[in-house]
Amino acid sequence: MESKLREIIKSISAADAAAVKAAEERQAKLAKPPGSLGVLEDISVKLAGITGQVKNKVDNTRILVFAADNGVVSEGVSCTPQSVTASQVMNMTRHKTGMSTLAKEFGCSIEIYDMGIATPYNGTGIINRSLGAGTANIAEGAAMTREACVTAIMTGIEAADRAAADGIQAVGIGEMGIGNTTTSACVLAALTGSDAQQVCGRGGGLTDTAFEHKKEVVARALEVNKPQRDDPIDVLAKVGGFDLAAMTGAFIGCAKSRIAAVVDGYISTVAALCAVRLCPAVRDYIFLSHASFEVGCRIAQEALDLKPCLLLGMRLGEGSGCPIMFQVMRAACSIICDMASFEEAAINDSYLEEIRRIDGFTVKK
Amino acid sequence: MESKLREIIKSISAADAAAVKAAEERQAKLAKPPGSLGVLEDISVKLAGITGQVKNKVDNTRILVFAADNGVVSEGVSCTPQSVTASQVMNMTRHKTGMSTLAKEFGCSIEIYDMGIATPYNGTGIINRSLGAGTANIAEGAAMTREACVTAIMTGIEAADRAAADGIQAVGIGEMGIGNTTTSACVLAALTGSDAQQVCGRGGGLTDTAFEHKKEVVARALEVNKPQRDDPIDVLAKVGGFDLAAMTGAFIGCAKSRIAAVVDGYISTVAALCAVRLCPAVRDYIFLSHASFEVGCRIAQEALDLKPCLLLGMRLGEGSGCPIMFQVMRAACSIICDMASFEEAAINDSYLEEIRRIDGFTVKK
Repeated sequence: MESKLREIIKSISAADAAAVKAAEERQAKLAKPPGSLGVLEDISVKLAGITGQVKNKVDNTRILVFAADNGVVSEGVSCTPQSVTASQVMNMTRHKTGMSTLAKEFGCSIEIYDMGIATPYNGTGIINRSLGAGTANIAEGAAMTREACVTAIMTGIEAADRAAADGIQAVGIGEMGIGNTTTSACVLAALTGSDAQQVCGRGGGLTDTAFEHKKEVVARALEVNKPQRDDPIDVLAKVGGFDLAAMTGAFIGCAKSRIAAVVDGYISTVAALCAVRLCPAVRDYIFLSHASFEVGCRIAQEALDLKPCLLLGMRLGEGSGCPIMFQVMRAACSIICDMASFEEAAINDSYLEEIRRIDGFTVKK
Repeated sequence: MESKLREIIKSISAADAAAVKAAEERQAKLAKPPGSLGVLEDISVKLAGITGQVKNKVDNTRILVFAADNGVVSEGVSCTPQSVTASQVMNMTRHKTGMSTLAKEFGCSIEIYDMGIATPYNGTGIINRSLGAGTANIAEGAAMTREACVTAIMTGIEAADRAAADGIQAVGIGEMGIGNTTTSACVLAALTGSDAQQVCGRGGGLTDTAFEHKKEVVARALEVNKPQRDDPIDVLAKVGGFDLAAMTGAFIGCAKSRIAAVVDGYISTVAALCAVRLCPAVRDYIFLSHASFEVGCRIAQEALDLKPCLLLGMRLGEGSGCPIMFQVMRAACSIICDMASFEEAAINDSYLEEIRRIDGFTVKK
């Protein structure tokens, strides 16, 4: 299985340089001061690099949610009981949670994967890829075997492949799993060499005492497992979770299928970093949505060297930032697709002929 | 006329405190960690204060564009010729500019007011409220009479009133006017006591020499006119423009008609500040969209003590940030309208009964 994953990783290529150049050229020709639409221009150029086309659309979108439980909750790192993973996943299928409410509002489809939910649940609409009733407690040993980790990554790749086959243009990558800010903190510390003090946040809302305890558990998990910084699969298997591993795969899968991958909050950002560490070319396919409330998220965003577009102080997870980010991407697409270029407009417009002669508008010509 | 304006200002009331409280109570009951949807929660609460209703929609939106020329362009403060004001306004009516492309994509209507465009143009779809072929040169004297300024403010109020009568739920306030980053810098300096060095940016894209010259012109305009800091009408009349004055009125008009007013970039933020200085209650109706590229914009945002939601590095103006911000507001509305509260969900859902008992979810109860 791991050799198949290695093959996929090897097959992934970076952005299409010719399409990037063509998109930059088109942006320079649009009737506006060069660069004046800022990140909207950058997004359109990045999308061109992904699809190989200058004009793209982000109308057909999907949120992939990877849900799993984490054995580390037995250390008391979360203020929320483990059963909430199952209950919130059920509520997602009925568009009752934060992310699923936003997804419905903006017409994004949702696909939910049970990667290892501990609590039994009744309900339809969840794809069963369970690797067990949650991971083992990372404060005592490895979360999972290396084989299970690779299987979870492959599941994420398949989910992205299916999205591409369904004509999805951009995928948001979300999660549900009580305890997963703790595993994310461990993975981030292992990948970046940051210590437990820096990478921990309060997750769903910890008290001061519980917060100190969480940092201690993260430090212990790193000490017990000694994850190998240059081997992201080792890191994910030892101190990650089924959700994080599958999300890592989904980011890789988006790059494999050449579709845009949108990051949500802390956990999603850490998974994106794992994917980029496994395969640097994946970075060309990744868009950050919002600046997360969790402190570790900033460290992960800096490690990715990517910037978020939304300042919303959100810390819900699930993929809740993605439906809003899709609207920003839709805006970027409308600019490069529909705004008049000097050339196009000049056909029947003497006014734009005039603009074309202006210094301020011709810097990039 | 000014006495009528004073009456309107006196009639404006602050946010509906009871509706704000009811919205905060509803947010605390939604099935999520309290505050975890950050600014989306704040927006929904602010909208409740505006309309008096807990559940609102931002589906029916409009961008008001106030276009005018500025005599100060004769000082060479802009790299773009004055005729571009007229040509870009024409292009807006055909959905060819940045803002109008985005407005079309997201289904926002546009209303364009000619407040004093200097160049003759042929075209329909522009509301003529011209107060002259541009203002006088503020580097030599007052931009306009106090009476003209009040007339422009009243035009903005009427535009907002009409939007409310048309069932518009949120108005974006934009502009077109070559030279209006210079007038905005003067108005901002006059209102905040900042000096010309701080409030000036490069506008559409000035060279170093032209930038130094712009700062010198701003300082001269302030010296020649001596605008009265505690009299925003005096400030707008002496160193503002027809566009800025009408935009100020539009912000006041939104508050009068109790609809949300969305700020775009630098010029729009300065107009919002004028409106709040004239009538502090207007602040309860104002939403910032994006963090503008122009340095002065940050000063104006801080003076308003409001925070933007979008980090897009945009500096086009026209109202281009507003159609995207409307999507953020739409997201905020969908959360408070459609997400399950513990109570609502408990009716037919034992899972949420369980969540209700969790500490982390009941902090605000």
